[in-house]
Amino acid sequence: MTGFSNRQLLLKQRPHGRPGPECYEWRESRTAAPADGELLVRNLYLSLDPAIRGWMDDAPSYMPPIPVGSVMRGTTIARVIESRCDGFLPGDIVQGLNGWEDYSITPGAGFTAKVPLELKRPLTNFLSVLGPTGLTAYFGLIDVGRPQRGETVLVSGAAGAVGSIVGQIAAILGCHAVGIAGGAQKCSWLTEQLGFDAAIDYKREAGLGAAIQAACPDGVDVYFDNVGGPLLESVLANINERARLLMCGAISGYNAVEPPPGPRNLWQLIVKSARLEGFLIKSYLGRWAEGRAQMAAWLDAGLIKHREHVDRGLENAPQSFLRLFDGNHDGKLIVDIAGKEAP
Amino acid sequence: MTGFSNRQLLLKQRPHGRPGPECYEWRESRTAAPADGELLVRNLYLSLDPAIRGWMDDAPSYMPPIPVGSVMRGTTIARVIESRCDGFLPGDIVQGLNGWEDYSITPGAGFTAKVPLELKRPLTNFLSVLGPTGLTAYFGLIDVGRPQRGETVLVSGAAGAVGSIVGQIAAILGCHAVGIAGGAQKCSWLTEQLGFDAAIDYKREAGLGAAIQAACPDGVDVYFDNVGGPLLESVLANINERARLLMCGAISGYNAVEPPPGPRNLWQLIVKSARLEGFLIKSYLGRWAEGRAQMAAWLDAGLIKHREHVDRGLENAPQSFLRLFDGNHDGKLIVDIAGKEAP
Repeated sequence: MTGFSNRQLLLKQRPHGRPGPECYEWRESRTAAPADGELLVRNLYLSLDPAIRGWMDDAPSYMPPIPVGSVMRGTTIARVIESRCDGFLPGDIVQGLNGWEDYSITPGAGFTAKVPLELKRPLTNFLSVLGPTGLTAYFGLIDVGRPQRGETVLVSGAAGAVGSIVGQIAAILGCHAVGIAGGAQKCSWLTEQLGFDAAIDYKREAGLGAAIQAACPDGVDVYFDNVGGPLLESVLANINERARLLMCGAISGYNAVEPPPGPRNLWQLIVKSARLEGFLIKSYLGRWAEGRAQMAAWLDAGLIKHREHVDRGLENAPQSFLRLFDGNHDGKLIVDIAGKEAP
Repeated sequence: MTGFSNRQLLLKQRPHGRPGPECYEWRESRTAAPADGELLVRNLYLSLDPAIRGWMDDAPSYMPPIPVGSVMRGTTIARVIESRCDGFLPGDIVQGLNGWEDYSITPGAGFTAKVPLELKRPLTNFLSVLGPTGLTAYFGLIDVGRPQRGETVLVSGAAGAVGSIVGQIAAILGCHAVGIAGGAQKCSWLTEQLGFDAAIDYKREAGLGAAIQAACPDGVDVYFDNVGGPLLESVLANINERARLLMCGAISGYNAVEPPPGPRNLWQLIVKSARLEGFLIKSYLGRWAEGRAQMAAWLDAGLIKHREHVDRGLENAPQSFLRLFDGNHDGKLIVDIAGKEAP
């Protein structure tokens, strides 16, 4: 028998709200040989991101939906087993959009990048602080938010993988960094460990508008929205002239069957000559190395702290994925697929 | 007795919804002499703009509310009667933010500008196509919308003073210009007289999303929103990558006691890396002459058509103002205050 035994998680049916176990089914197959230009890779770590929830719906988005019956999609760190693509050799550690499976066949050039091992960071870092989440924080804040020293940067989902980095970069840049998170423990982590100037516990505050006003006495210049939903209305009531509001995620709505209405006070954008802008990290693929180098330098200098939540075993991926929506994890959510096999 | 008899319209009470006659009261007074640095001017033409409705509310905005008991605020074209400000002489024709009254005392420098009579246009043009409305269209579209040749520009309130100019500029720039307006007559004016490529009659169309899709087969690159309200949701469903959505007015909400909820699909901004930006013409005061020169050149070349709806008599201003909300006027709404006295 040729090939390797490959466990694959397929999308069995589209979720209606929360993506429960009924959405998945297992397939056991043997790996095929890669075609010309392709790689066969062993997936080591799988990144679980809110965006995957969007791909599970049959809705127009920036990527096509995952077809029902196909392997679930996700970014992995992987080891090249067999290469039919110039520039890749067996043993190379690479990163790319692969599947929730032990092995993937993947196009090489343009779709797969070598992990820069010379940065001497743990492999999981390239899915977290030096990967899509860290670079989403970096390019979103720097390039779309454009914060100036002394301005106030407010971030929602502040204890999350993206939000926690956003606030730390804002603090490095000399901004007044304020986070919104759920629970006293998360909030004290932001202010005591990560250098946020203030944190707002949305589970505790009755009036979020007043809480934002208190934590941002000079108003909000940059808002980095990782959660979407009704929070935006409270933020709009507190923005300054020429504020930049960045929509990065809308996790509060991902499981909504009926999307919630938008903010009633969008006209504040007119009153304040302000801007609300959507952001996708895929627009910055050409500047990946630049962002990663800066993030690595800040990490090495001890200026950025981050957490990774690594769950073990591909078989636990569906359960693990739900943590994103329950807030039941600390830091970037990753599944260790290969266990001891990982280098 | 010194001074001139001055009829003044005061804000008697703040409107609750539509600004009916109960909101105003008359005062007859005598004009005072201007203080040092001030001008006494005879108001000739008064511009009636949607923004005035906002100033009647006691709500935070980009200008303070009109205090109850004070003269209604508005932009006028006026003749200088007495000047205590360097650079202005009696007889000069000026433009500035004055009041709904026969005469105003106004600060000179920085608040009042001489009308460029050398452009040889009717005075009312400086309140319409060469004034705030025309320049709102110009700077909003050019500077915020940034349309490129071949892109699709969609404008709401397209038969209005701003919208009708937006679509014509878009057509001049080689864009696919589409307008949304109410009624077959307005729509045929857009396509047959103004050079719009298509017009959507929102009063007739059941599904606006589908109507926009049909009129904008390549999707919407620039949306110039003059009306606010639920239309935005239908537009968001049809935007292209990197679309620029410009919020210029929100007239549909000006009389709303309870503001309507915002669009349910703001996440389209993320999916399309698009931008929603508020715009106020006051940000462009420093570039007024540049915009006016370009608009005057297009007017002289016959490339821009426009309409003015001039109602006669200050006493009719409150009734005239309601036309803005009833759609019961054609073109820029202006009150002729001085009648035969005007030069």
